[in-house]
Amino acid sequence: MANTNTKGSSTQKWRKGSTKKQTTKTTAKTTSKATKATKSNRTPAKRVPKKTKKALPKLKIFSLGGLNEIGKNITVLECENDIIVIDCGIGFPDDDMLGVDLVIPNFSYLEANVDKIRGVFITHGHEDHIGSLPYFLRSINVPVYGTKLTLGILENKLIEHKLLQSSKLMTVSAGDKVSAGCFKVEFIRVNHSIADACALAITTPQGVVIHTGDFKLDLTPVESKPMDIARLGELGNAGVLMLLCESTNVERPGYTPSESKVGLSLERIFSQAEDKRIIIATFASNVHRVQQIINSSVRHNRKVAVTGRSMINVVNAAVRLGYMNVPDGVLIDIDNIKKYPPEKITIVTTGSQGEPMSALYRMAFSDHDKISLTDKDLVVLSSSAIPGNEPLVGKIVNELYRRGVNVYHDSSVEVHVSGHACQEELKLMHSLTKPKYFMPIHGEYRHLIQHKELAEGMGMPSENIFVSDIGKVIEIDEDGARFLPTPVPAGKILIDGSGMGDVGNIVLRDRKNLAESGVIIAVATISSDEGILLAGPEIISRGFVYVRENEELMNGAREIATASIIDALSRGAHEWGDLKSILKGAISKYIFNKTKRKPLILPIIMTI
Amino acid sequence: MANTNTKGSSTQKWRKGSTKKQTTKTTAKTTSKATKATKSNRTPAKRVPKKTKKALPKLKIFSLGGLNEIGKNITVLECENDIIVIDCGIGFPDDDMLGVDLVIPNFSYLEANVDKIRGVFITHGHEDHIGSLPYFLRSINVPVYGTKLTLGILENKLIEHKLLQSSKLMTVSAGDKVSAGCFKVEFIRVNHSIADACALAITTPQGVVIHTGDFKLDLTPVESKPMDIARLGELGNAGVLMLLCESTNVERPGYTPSESKVGLSLERIFSQAEDKRIIIATFASNVHRVQQIINSSVRHNRKVAVTGRSMINVVNAAVRLGYMNVPDGVLIDIDNIKKYPPEKITIVTTGSQGEPMSALYRMAFSDHDKISLTDKDLVVLSSSAIPGNEPLVGKIVNELYRRGVNVYHDSSVEVHVSGHACQEELKLMHSLTKPKYFMPIHGEYRHLIQHKELAEGMGMPSENIFVSDIGKVIEIDEDGARFLPTPVPAGKILIDGSGMGDVGNIVLRDRKNLAESGVIIAVATISSDEGILLAGPEIISRGFVYVRENEELMNGAREIATASIIDALSRGAHEWGDLKSILKGAISKYIFNKTKRKPLILPIIMTI
Repeated sequence: MANTNTKGSSTQKWRKGSTKKQTTKTTAKTTSKATKATKSNRTPAKRVPKKTKKALPKLKIFSLGGLNEIGKNITVLECENDIIVIDCGIGFPDDDMLGVDLVIPNFSYLEANVDKIRGVFITHGHEDHIGSLPYFLRSINVPVYGTKLTLGILENKLIEHKLLQSSKLMTVSAGDKVSAGCFKVEFIRVNHSIADACALAITTPQGVVIHTGDFKLDLTPVESKPMDIARLGELGNAGVLMLLCESTNVERPGYTPSESKVGLSLERIFSQAEDKRIIIATFASNVHRVQQIINSSVRHNRKVAVTGRSMINVVNAAVRLGYMNVPDGVLIDIDNIKKYPPEKITIVTTGSQGEPMSALYRMAFSDHDKISLTDKDLVVLSSSAIPGNEPLVGKIVNELYRRGVNVYHDSSVEVHVSGHACQEELKLMHSLTKPKYFMPIHGEYRHLIQHKELAEGMGMPSENIFVSDIGKVIEIDEDGARFLPTPVPAGKILIDGSGMGDVGNIVLRDRKNLAESGVIIAVATISSDEGILLAGPEIISRGFVYVRENEELMNGAREIATASIIDALSRGAHEWGDLKSILKGAISKYIFNKTKRKPLILPIIMTI
Repeated sequence: MANTNTKGSSTQKWRKGSTKKQTTKTTAKTTSKATKATKSNRTPAKRVPKKTKKALPKLKIFSLGGLNEIGKNITVLECENDIIVIDCGIGFPDDDMLGVDLVIPNFSYLEANVDKIRGVFITHGHEDHIGSLPYFLRSINVPVYGTKLTLGILENKLIEHKLLQSSKLMTVSAGDKVSAGCFKVEFIRVNHSIADACALAITTPQGVVIHTGDFKLDLTPVESKPMDIARLGELGNAGVLMLLCESTNVERPGYTPSESKVGLSLERIFSQAEDKRIIIATFASNVHRVQQIINSSVRHNRKVAVTGRSMINVVNAAVRLGYMNVPDGVLIDIDNIKKYPPEKITIVTTGSQGEPMSALYRMAFSDHDKISLTDKDLVVLSSSAIPGNEPLVGKIVNELYRRGVNVYHDSSVEVHVSGHACQEELKLMHSLTKPKYFMPIHGEYRHLIQHKELAEGMGMPSENIFVSDIGKVIEIDEDGARFLPTPVPAGKILIDGSGMGDVGNIVLRDRKNLAESGVIIAVATISSDEGILLAGPEIISRGFVYVRENEELMNGAREIATASIIDALSRGAHEWGDLKSILKGAISKYIFNKTKRKPLILPIIMTI
């Protein structure tokens, strides 16, 4: 694939050039890196079809994840021979995906078009935006662009997967622009529950596409840098072709409160904590939350210790990269907490979702080797339970109460705010960017539809709104935008242990069956020549009933199995398949009559 | 067991007699039934220990469910040779109780003391208060007292379990008193999310014990009968020994809104529904909610059809027993809905918790044989998701949106209110009854503790509050109240299919293991005399990997298994157990190395 056009020639095709001011803002470092990554990007001129008036290349936009599902966010822009990928996240398994650890996107379209891919652009460092990169980069080793903290967090993951050496990580800052084939990608600062989050404005041959990433508007953010409203407005005034906007909180009216509100609540708790040790559980990646905990600790002369692997990783990265402001001597090792009285200690921990084996879970269940909780402890769950996790969180809270611990959580005090835009903030985004077309992203179907209704309520014509699905391709040219009839391959690849994609529907159905009622195995050895039973049938079960207390039932099953197989053999049924199905039928029927259960029945015939 | 004392003699022992007015209110019917049920109730006088001053018999109070758990509510009062049981509910399995359908209490203490039991008193007809009765009554056939609707709902269950003929159901009304051995049980009207709910005031030899059941204060209830505040206050003024009060909503400040509020919201939805069919999902047992749906339907000239087995059962019982006011011709059969235009139809359905196979679920997934949904439909989820059920409910809502249906749920409009008392209502209950002792019931540990704190905040001495656990016995006599050192047997009996108690920890652990990674079975037939391998080993798996696409892995496992068994046999290992553990070890190690998974490995050695 000879991609020889230079960046310079491709820029001439842009319908909207970027303003001079923004170009100047691009750091030299980034520009040079970006150039390096994209120097051989364009197709030969001969591939442009001949027309009287030269048509601009068509733009294709599609997502391989994040539509009609929560998580696994990944969006693709394609224009002639250039592809860029935005985010590359993981999803978490549904309740019916038994034994599945993670869900990643189906990358087969990208694998088949690997030579076109100019880079992956990451909006921020949350798992649902970066988590699939280790699987993606194994087969598609292209440059990855992201802000400093985003790539700092990604580095930890790549080290675990032994991919750091081979990966091309390109650090950018908000305001930077990166050329990638016929695309130019500008990073725009937004607020979110992780530092250094960006929206992306992608200049394409057809116009500017804005991808919001995850965002909220925080006018009093902890890092003192609100979303770059001005730049978004500037782009809107110049003309935005399409907006891809996140939909997580579209069901919530109003505005999401500022992160600073949590700081005020924490300060109140610290002021009243008196002689108590304070333990605060929050999301590891919420650097600003941790900063506020440190601020309150400093004000109240407390040392801060950190526990939980992901929390330690993120805090280390944030401190190292300058995202946290920690006075010397404040952070102490968890081993040293015993040197201070309880009222001089704050502990920051993982486990705010009730995750079994998280540091907070281990503390609650007296299984943490460094921390045991008593009535001298005060625990703050600075988080809200992700829907479905409430029972897990409730279990921890009960245990904390059992140890006499004071517990604060978001239903009693405002110790958590969302990181996502509510309805008025979404309207602000629409109002600033004034896009011609709109595609709601990051949401289940109901979120996407409600986001569509929100846009319609602001006057956008319905036909300009694309409620899409993974794999479904939107094509845009001078004549308009439309769904293409044929989608690209898309779906869920399930990760179980080190296996990738080897667990599918049949395996999951069996697991569900096994989980419900267990398994009964009937093994018999027969002589294939004489057609007689040599050994068995033995009946073995797991996960069915407690066998010692149900001997009668199991003996009954053995008798039924023996009778059915002897009868079948005497009737001349020597076929392996026939014998198995006779055996299975007899046992199933007997067991269901006796117990009203349907364990998985596995007949095994050994022949000698 | 000769229980010969009469009701008359036992009443003389009561510390607090009941007022004449209340006695008069008791209906003749109930009194006669109650007498019938309790005529041979008391122990011979010889069993009263000799003392200079005759001591009153000690009272024991304990719960076999509903403490440190949600559901499975059952409380026991025991005094000398008399026992009464209050409620007898089921619990729902935790996430880790795979394949378990229901959880019922351990009844062994009651089974061992069956001759003392004078009756079961049911506060209301919810599953967590009546659901275990079919299991209880199998071995303990005593009279069951409850209000008309409560027993009407119970009858349906007993018919299913073929127990109706043998059961002794005694209908009472709010205001009635029932004598039961040395106890006298008075039913007191409360409001709740089911009609005909009562608190109980139990006069015991030691004083009056009040059990609130589940309650809220509704000053504008649909049935026009608010909680009997006056009677509770009267009992409080006369002196209450102990209050057992529910704790479900103790974390919520303020008051629970009136059920009538939902009626107003529904009316608004009906007024704006124009040409749409209205489908409303709610809890089957919420008779007042259904009444309000019928009221709005009548006002807007709609016919009402009911779908979902439990909804049909409850509506039939409620109409038959006079708990619903339905003008003639309003209720129509679901088969007849096609005779009317959409704007003339309301459908009331089950499925508000997203239950798979419920009527609403089947409608959403186009699997309901009578109803298909389109953009001419409007669905109201008149409910709130029980914690943990949000993903299930979300799944249905997405499907409804996909069919173009308008969806209303409680996060957008007030179409649901709780049936339980919030903090101010709990304070009202404490304030009315002014109990000497208090035991919070119906809650996880955190609820019980917060309820304790609420009582302390009202001035109750901490030492008079008993935060108990299932099986833990409180003893009360003239010297005070205390926990006894030895609990009675208590726990969770798991119901799976028709099996009761045959699924325990070992079975659940196996099911969890099977659910996570499936099962691999290795079968070999050996000659026990010669110690040689005759057939196999065969490797069979279920729920592990998709075998056809992983032949290499499975072949590898077979080779490892064969090598290990041949090697073991050649080294003279003929012991069945040794061979099994060698086989298991070899396969486990191989599989973990290749996949990082730990399926359940089942080695089977057949000997000839």
